Amino acid sequence: MSSQLEVIPLGGLGEFGMNCAALRAGEDLILVDAGMMFPGRRTAASLGVDLMVPDISFLLENRRQLRAIVLTHGHEDHAGGVSYIIDQLQVPVYANRLTLGLVSSRLRERGLDQEADLRLLEADRPVDLGAFQVEPLRVTHSFPESYCFAIRTPVGRIIWSGDFKFDQTPIDGHRSNLARLAELGQEGVLALFSDSTNGDVPGLSPSESSVYEPLEKLFRQADGKIVLTTFASSMHRIQIVLDLARKVGRKVVPMGRSMVSNIRLASRLGYLRTDSDLLRSREDLARIPSERLIVLASGSQGEPMSALSRLSVDEVRQTRIEAGDLVLLSSRIIPGNEKGIGQMINHFNRRGARVLDSRHQPIHASGHGYREDLKLMINLTRPRFFVPIHGEYRQLAAHARLARRQGIPSDQVHLLETGEVLGLSPDKAEILGQVPAGRRFIDEGIRRPVGQELLRDRRFMATDGVLVVGLRIDRMNWELMGEPELISRGFVQPEDSQELMQETRARIRRLVSEAGANGKRDEGLLGQMLQTGLKRFLRKRTRKRPLIVPVVLTL
Amino acid sequence: MSSQLEVIPLGGLGEFGMNCAALRAGEDLILVDAGMMFPGRRTAASLGVDLMVPDISFLLENRRQLRAIVLTHGHEDHAGGVSYIIDQLQVPVYANRLTLGLVSSRLRERGLDQEADLRLLEADRPVDLGAFQVEPLRVTHSFPESYCFAIRTPVGRIIWSGDFKFDQTPIDGHRSNLARLAELGQEGVLALFSDSTNGDVPGLSPSESSVYEPLEKLFRQADGKIVLTTFASSMHRIQIVLDLARKVGRKVVPMGRSMVSNIRLASRLGYLRTDSDLLRSREDLARIPSERLIVLASGSQGEPMSALSRLSVDEVRQTRIEAGDLVLLSSRIIPGNEKGIGQMINHFNRRGARVLDSRHQPIHASGHGYREDLKLMINLTRPRFFVPIHGEYRQLAAHARLARRQGIPSDQVHLLETGEVLGLSPDKAEILGQVPAGRRFIDEGIRRPVGQELLRDRRFMATDGVLVVGLRIDRMNWELMGEPELISRGFVQPEDSQELMQETRARIRRLVSEAGANGKRDEGLLGQMLQTGLKRFLRKRTRKRPLIVPVVLTL
Repeated sequence: MSSQLEVIPLGGLGEFGMNCAALRAGEDLILVDAGMMFPGRRTAASLGVDLMVPDISFLLENRRQLRAIVLTHGHEDHAGGVSYIIDQLQVPVYANRLTLGLVSSRLRERGLDQEADLRLLEADRPVDLGAFQVEPLRVTHSFPESYCFAIRTPVGRIIWSGDFKFDQTPIDGHRSNLARLAELGQEGVLALFSDSTNGDVPGLSPSESSVYEPLEKLFRQADGKIVLTTFASSMHRIQIVLDLARKVGRKVVPMGRSMVSNIRLASRLGYLRTDSDLLRSREDLARIPSERLIVLASGSQGEPMSALSRLSVDEVRQTRIEAGDLVLLSSRIIPGNEKGIGQMINHFNRRGARVLDSRHQPIHASGHGYREDLKLMINLTRPRFFVPIHGEYRQLAAHARLARRQGIPSDQVHLLETGEVLGLSPDKAEILGQVPAGRRFIDEGIRRPVGQELLRDRRFMATDGVLVVGLRIDRMNWELMGEPELISRGFVQPEDSQELMQETRARIRRLVSEAGANGKRDEGLLGQMLQTGLKRFLRKRTRKRPLIVPVVLTL
Repeated sequence: MSSQLEVIPLGGLGEFGMNCAALRAGEDLILVDAGMMFPGRRTAASLGVDLMVPDISFLLENRRQLRAIVLTHGHEDHAGGVSYIIDQLQVPVYANRLTLGLVSSRLRERGLDQEADLRLLEADRPVDLGAFQVEPLRVTHSFPESYCFAIRTPVGRIIWSGDFKFDQTPIDGHRSNLARLAELGQEGVLALFSDSTNGDVPGLSPSESSVYEPLEKLFRQADGKIVLTTFASSMHRIQIVLDLARKVGRKVVPMGRSMVSNIRLASRLGYLRTDSDLLRSREDLARIPSERLIVLASGSQGEPMSALSRLSVDEVRQTRIEAGDLVLLSSRIIPGNEKGIGQMINHFNRRGARVLDSRHQPIHASGHGYREDLKLMINLTRPRFFVPIHGEYRQLAAHARLARRQGIPSDQVHLLETGEVLGLSPDKAEILGQVPAGRRFIDEGIRRPVGQELLRDRRFMATDGVLVVGLRIDRMNWELMGEPELISRGFVQPEDSQELMQETRARIRRLVSEAGANGKRDEGLLGQMLQTGLKRFLRKRTRKRPLIVPVVLTL
């Protein structure tokens, strides 16, 4: 048996925002988290990709070694990929109760709920998974009952932080397990892998409770409807809204598919304190006066089909935004969504609503630790080796600098790239190599991962269009019959380009007769010659590179 | 002659970020500004559009009335559209010296410099343009010698603010003409049209001089190369960099096409104080030690082909980023570019450089007034009517609220939409109607505006691809000869979809025989039937809507 531990991030770094990491000791492999990510708004830029999950070819190659998937918590970027990979992997999935609920409803949507072996993971109750023992410790985060994993391995203990901050006044009363973290630090931690999302933000991450008072003040000032948005998985924030609604005498109507189903699930599992008088359905909207209403809408990122976007353009049948309404974005703006969110805010303004977000009022608190939280984690666990995970490169780099300043020697701090294999032994950490890793692009329409070639074609057509060339070739003498037919879609406008089309036809005639003369009397070959020849010609004439699709019919 | 003034914003509002407005009194029309805008990074999302200019169909309809285009200053969003519309309008263009220089170099690029009638507009020297007298007043802004226009019209004086802030310590010493603004306020101002870019930002806009000290401190601390980026038209900022470089003993190498040409033009026209020892060319790079070098690069928005982006990925031949280098983003992040800029920063981090932007250090100052500047403008000019211009709807709305709080009655504050005609008479302002307005999309590749249909095709192909259907039809009996040929590009992957293709072929055979049976023996008609029938079929089977391109060859 190898005396080495291999740690391989298959996601969670840089652009690969879906968290996923393989840990291998000898013949035993476990996967920590299996997230997904969205490509942003469903515009041309998405190239028809609905979501991205990690490339799991490394796991498929080593499927017999894989013992389990363990999930730190239920956010999409940590657990959302399970339903896209589980049918190929067939291993137990361990997670807390709410996460299992979310995963199983996703599996049901995909018709996979029968196949999955879901197992409950409880705080402070270690599970043995081959050579590994995974001990879940509570940490505070924007998802209830999130875990940090202390993992016993043949070469020593490692700590996988999961998403965390050190919130001393969490909404659900469950504090981070500081005592156990400190104890582990005393016993000796070989390596800490720690969340870097806010690795470049100074100070201490504000408590979730800190949004309570600002929200209460705004709730009390409002005289019209209140529309509040947050992530549908932010149960603590939703609890605050419910508690405050009761306090100020308003009813809460969840709106948007994920918001409604998450609240239902969390209430059923006991993660939300609410009641049927407080929480109302969309059908009750007409009966609740504006000054008694809070609409809790999903769509904080301005997603075009979301409840919030549809409210902003008056496309929700049961209610409408009016002058004097208050819209609160109690959420983070994910980079890349600024423009879409800005447009949504413009629409609310057009309808006379006031819109406030966390730039105006402290009505959002990050679920991720700032630099002071990160320092505390390092000082509690006192690891020999340090590896920043979960963040863009600049955040990982900032976190690495911070760790060095906390006293971890430079050569014991490792900045990994996706797919790199870090080999850990009690006294050494080194990059051993690289396994295939990256993103699989899922197009729900065609129900499968789409390849690079397909995406490249879409990208070209998005900016340069397509030119279809229809030809009839006389098989006997390899001569063109009639005129080549040219159909431009998204390339040029026919009415503007008659001259160009004339020249293109002449060029085609020349290419066909060249092909005939060279004895290359093959449809496939002619197609290739047309593609190459026309591409070059059109590029010169128009500076554009449309896809060229020859349809050669021989007779 | 009408006793009414019509003011029509043809751009500058909301998503139509290119400033442009028509003013008409009787039979005299003038155009204030003619901007352009970029669609963002040249990715699939741009749909091949290189830039956007205002729709000028209203001007073309009334071309005989148009007396002149007057430009407040030379930023692209105010002057960049001139070279795309001037050949159709053929009127004199008035602007300050640097703006004329920029416009004429753009005209030269497009081969239009012979046609244009460019005329110098000097501060405090009014010009008569039909029924209008335009008096240019200096205001401070990030472009040298920017103007606010006091315009005498048959119904009274209006003030068109242009882009401005009230900078009491401008870099070039030219302060805003507060005295004349106050005097006009005393004489009576019918309406103020005022820049709303920072209409929702509290406080007073910091002086351009405020970046001097923070930059000096950073310059003195740096021991490696300094790479600084700012907008290539920000002459004041460039002057600060040149002055500081001299002070700390570094040479400045401009990099990027617009940066090099703008600096050359501005130096020649006397807008920059520099010399040939201080300012060096790219060829000198190898001879300047890192600690004596400042690279002044364009590409502050992370544009993929820009000097700064190419430096970040080590694609500049003459130099490379090394550990210890300092990268300063002395610029604003335009909403929508956060992600691209973030990726560029990641790349600089990978190379070991430190990257600072205005979130870390006060190294950028906006050229646009904050709310206190805006209040001062209102209080100086004391207008009867107020119209916020230049901004997104939420900024216009915030500016309108501010004006009301400054004492302008609500019914004298007008929030216009693009193309709306505001009728102004000495005691009345009202919306008279709407003229055609919007954006023209320019695809430089095909060298003309592209229509909505072309863009719609590109958008569909970007996400759903194209399916080309090749058919041979026997003209005699209207029967299909051989198998239909199906070519998918960007729709599905052939290897994954053999079943789907089988079904599609069967569907095509049915559609062809239906067409034959119905006596609809026409290629165009058959093509339409195929498009409709297959679109519905594929939508059901795949939830996707590829463009369907039938190539029907009859024999």
